[in-house]
Amino acid sequence: MELPSLFARYRVELEEYLRSAIPQGGPALLYGMMRYHLGWEDEHGRPLAESAGKALRPTLCLWACQAMGADWRTALPAAAALELTHNFSLVHDDIQDSDSERRHRPTVWSVWGQPQAINAGDSLLILARLVMLGLEERGVAPAKVIEACRVLDETCLTMIEGQCLDIGFEDEREVTVDAYLDMIARKTGALLGTSLHLGALVAVDDEPQMKRLARCGHLLGLAFQIRDDILGVWGAADVTGKPVAADIRRRKKSLPLVYAMAVAQAEEHEQLLRVYSQGAPGDEDVSTVLQLLDGHRAYDYCQQMAQERVEQALAELATVDIEPTARRDFEAVAKFLLEREF
Amino acid sequence: MELPSLFARYRVELEEYLRSAIPQGGPALLYGMMRYHLGWEDEHGRPLAESAGKALRPTLCLWACQAMGADWRTALPAAAALELTHNFSLVHDDIQDSDSERRHRPTVWSVWGQPQAINAGDSLLILARLVMLGLEERGVAPAKVIEACRVLDETCLTMIEGQCLDIGFEDEREVTVDAYLDMIARKTGALLGTSLHLGALVAVDDEPQMKRLARCGHLLGLAFQIRDDILGVWGAADVTGKPVAADIRRRKKSLPLVYAMAVAQAEEHEQLLRVYSQGAPGDEDVSTVLQLLDGHRAYDYCQQMAQERVEQALAELATVDIEPTARRDFEAVAKFLLEREF
Repeated sequence: MELPSLFARYRVELEEYLRSAIPQGGPALLYGMMRYHLGWEDEHGRPLAESAGKALRPTLCLWACQAMGADWRTALPAAAALELTHNFSLVHDDIQDSDSERRHRPTVWSVWGQPQAINAGDSLLILARLVMLGLEERGVAPAKVIEACRVLDETCLTMIEGQCLDIGFEDEREVTVDAYLDMIARKTGALLGTSLHLGALVAVDDEPQMKRLARCGHLLGLAFQIRDDILGVWGAADVTGKPVAADIRRRKKSLPLVYAMAVAQAEEHEQLLRVYSQGAPGDEDVSTVLQLLDGHRAYDYCQQMAQERVEQALAELATVDIEPTARRDFEAVAKFLLEREF
Repeated sequence: MELPSLFARYRVELEEYLRSAIPQGGPALLYGMMRYHLGWEDEHGRPLAESAGKALRPTLCLWACQAMGADWRTALPAAAALELTHNFSLVHDDIQDSDSERRHRPTVWSVWGQPQAINAGDSLLILARLVMLGLEERGVAPAKVIEACRVLDETCLTMIEGQCLDIGFEDEREVTVDAYLDMIARKTGALLGTSLHLGALVAVDDEPQMKRLARCGHLLGLAFQIRDDILGVWGAADVTGKPVAADIRRRKKSLPLVYAMAVAQAEEHEQLLRVYSQGAPGDEDVSTVLQLLDGHRAYDYCQQMAQERVEQALAELATVDIEPTARRDFEAVAKFLLEREF
């Protein structure tokens, strides 16, 4: 399935803006790691034809700004800040999870080692803040720039809380569906909500509209994450760029497993606990878990959860006064996020 | 030797401000790691009597604000942001250097593991940004708040550049004194310069005065770092909280070694290259290096370098119009930084 056309609308200017934000000078290694991670260069600094990533967050931010009736270019600094913040979290997440591949390429830490990869993530995070301040040069009032910084920083802190909870799950025998939903609300929902919030903040002064769009993005973020969890178990390796049943092999307590743990009876429950409380599971363990998930129709359960959140997001959007074309763009993105295979 | 009285002047209110900045709620672990690292709690969350750290950067920031004739309390958000930024860098630095102790206590990563320690550092960095925005509530004009954010963010990026260069030195056979000085200018000089800059920025609109104070702090920062390098080789373990000759054992290319490499002749040079190009040096290697450093009077060379930078800082300060009492406070801090044993 193809990326909805909205993703193409801002792409060129967004990437130009992002590229111009990377400092010239300074240690070549630091900014080389950034450009590598963003998919613009290989590890030797040679340019790559195609950049990585869907740029979902900046796209939603610019869409919200445009949907609220303003020139979307005004929101470019916020959009770039969102993309850099998201990429900071990926670079550190790859270290934390010891993931050696992302988007079919070696992760930053697996090329340059953990210490330098920590620096790469830190500098992406700081650069996001600096880029946000560029709103001032685009004519956004200083008080509003500060508000945008506050919203992004609070969200970023929430996101790290989610990451902290997610890593903490590894040491817990069992995780409830509620605890899981709280975790992804912080880890993924918050930044997607803020993506729409910031686009609207730049465009209008209407606080209730901003809040509604933020909720809309938040719900979409939950659906996005749940679909991600589905792909982490059932995704095709050649499309996702991750190994088959990657999340089972890594013993991630993602939604399919959390759900199965909740509904499994005695013996099956023991089986799951056994696989998830020991070292890396072998192929046999993986297929046992897969069979068990299928027996409980965990795929359908998760997809239904994602679907419901998209429906709630669309219901929320119905209360926001935007043009039909803008609404259709959002619907196409929502549909894509539910059905995507990568 | 005792801490100059300036360090006591702002201490209570600064710590109160910092404590109130840590979010309530959220995962207990995340904010527990923060409070642990800041020296307020032990690893079980029990309060500690005495907090760690000299709080050099916030003290210099508040001093600059006061020296420029304003109420230093106005600059508390900036001072707190500086302290949090510094502590972010320590938490990540300890991971990057695999240091298991700091200030006589286990480091965050050695208590909670690397993945969670990365989160602890990330959240300190973000919290620093959020805290800075508190300037607005203290009556600082929005445009000036944005300027303060920009100055801190740019400095923080420079600091990460320094960290990147420092770690990169590990893979280089030899490092020149110039390359070393460039590295510490970024890693340590920048944030100390910004400490004075931000204090002055909050207080006055006089750009040249701010710049002069920033240079003053920058030079003091170089002296501070060079003294740190001295203590890393010759410091008393019970005072510094680090092992004897810690920087030799870790094969850090700090100033004493960089200098010795530059002046050592043939055989000695080979000896140094040998020790610094293999695994962890044994006690014999450490004493060989120590003898070699002493033979070249590396201690005196480094101390002289630090001394010169303090003199330059005081000369710079002589061009800034401040009260004699404020000048004496700064001089006492400068003298302390040159002579400190911890």
